Amino acid sequence: MSSTKESEVVVLGWWISMFTARVRIALAEKGINYQYIEEDLPENKSPLLLKHNPIYKKVPVLVHKGKPICESLIIVQYINETWKDGCSLLPSDPYLKSQAVFWADYIDKHIYPGTMIIISSKGEDMHKGVEQLLGYFKVLESELGEKPYFNGESFGFVDMALICYYSHLIAYGKVANYNVEKDCPKLFAWATLCMKRESVSKVLADPNKIYEMIIAYRKQNGTED
Amino acid sequence: MSSTKESEVVVLGWWISMFTARVRIALAEKGINYQYIEEDLPENKSPLLLKHNPIYKKVPVLVHKGKPICESLIIVQYINETWKDGCSLLPSDPYLKSQAVFWADYIDKHIYPGTMIIISSKGEDMHKGVEQLLGYFKVLESELGEKPYFNGESFGFVDMALICYYSHLIAYGKVANYNVEKDCPKLFAWATLCMKRESVSKVLADPNKIYEMIIAYRKQNGTED
Repeated sequence: MSSTKESEVVVLGWWISMFTARVRIALAEKGINYQYIEEDLPENKSPLLLKHNPIYKKVPVLVHKGKPICESLIIVQYINETWKDGCSLLPSDPYLKSQAVFWADYIDKHIYPGTMIIISSKGEDMHKGVEQLLGYFKVLESELGEKPYFNGESFGFVDMALICYYSHLIAYGKVANYNVEKDCPKLFAWATLCMKRESVSKVLADPNKIYEMIIAYRKQNGTED
Repeated sequence: MSSTKESEVVVLGWWISMFTARVRIALAEKGINYQYIEEDLPENKSPLLLKHNPIYKKVPVLVHKGKPICESLIIVQYINETWKDGCSLLPSDPYLKSQAVFWADYIDKHIYPGTMIIISSKGEDMHKGVEQLLGYFKVLESELGEKPYFNGESFGFVDMALICYYSHLIAYGKVANYNVEKDCPKLFAWATLCMKRESVSKVLADPNKIYEMIIAYRKQNGTED
C-alpha cells in the first residue's frame, strides 16, 4: 500500500456507476488509500459534488489534496501520472499509449450509448440495439485477439475501461436476452480473468441489484414487456 | 524546423475538417515537416485511409513511420509526447494536464454536436440550437477568464482544440444569424489572437467556402429557409 494519507484522496461515487468503479479499480491497482463518499443519486447531489464538478454534476470525482479531477478516463490517466510507483496503467511508449487511449475512447463512445438504447427500448428496437452492441463486442474481441489482456500480458488501461461495464452487461443480458458467455466467448474469458483481480471484483456492483434497478426504471418509463 | 523527414510523417486530411486543422496546427507549432494528403471526401475514401483507420474510416490520420494514429485529440497528445523538443502543447504537471484534457474533451462533446444541430435544422429548432451553442461558449468564456490563452500565457492544447472550429463558427453564424464577435466578445478576442499565429491561419479553411458547402448541404437535405 502507498503511504498516501486517506484524507488526501477522496472519491465521490455511486455504487451502480461503472465509471466510479473504473476509478476505484485504478486506485486499487496503484495501492492508493482513499476515502470513498457514496453519493445519494440520482436525486440528491451533495453540495460537495456540485462544488467539485460544476460542469457535469456527475460522479466520479477524484479530489486530490482539495483539487477535483472529473471524467473517469481523465482521472485514471491522472492517477497513473501522479503515483508513478508500482504498476503502470498505461504504456510509456507514445504509440502504444495512443492505441490504449484510442480503444478506451472507443469503449465509451459505443458501449455506454449501446447499453442505454437497450435499457430504454423494447421489441424490435431492443433487438436492433442488442445486435449493434454485439457488433461492438466483436470489434473488441478482434482487438483483444489471443492476448490475455488488451495491452498484452498485464492488466491495464483498456481492461479497466471495459471491465467496469461487466456487471451491467450481465444484468442487461437478462433483460434483453443476450448472453456474453455464449455470444462473445473470448471476451467472456477475458472478463473472467479480470474478475479474479481483487481490485475489480471488490468494487463492481452486484448484477442482481442492477437488474432490479433496470426493471424498476423500465416500469417507470413504460418500456417493460 | 525539426530534422524529421517529411516522408516519415504523413497526415491524411480534408480541407474542411476542423479535426484535420487541429492536427496540422499541432505539427506546425512543433515545427515538424510532414506530407499532407488531401482525401477526396465524403465520397471517395482512399485505400490508404481505409487501411489506416479501419474502425472509423475518417480523417485525420497521422501516419508516423508507417504506424497510424487516429482521433485528433489523441494525435495531438501523441505529437506532444513524440517530439519533445520545442514548445510543449500540454502542461507536464498532471493536474494542469488533466484540466486541459477535460476542457478539450468538453469542446468536442458539446461544440461539434452543437454545430451539427444548427446546420441540420431551421426555424425554432435552429434558434434553440443557437441558444444552446452560445451557452457552451459562455461556459468556455468563463473558463478563459482574463487569460490570453486557455492555458495562461502560452498557446496550447485547449486553444488548439477550440480554434480549429473558428472558420466553421463564422460560416454557421451567417446561416443561423448569430455573431461570435457580438455575442461572445471575450472568445472573439481570444480567437483573433490565435488567428495571428501562422500555424493557425495557414490551415483553417476559408469561411466563405464552408458557407457555400453548408448552403448546398441544406438544399440537398431540405433544410434551407
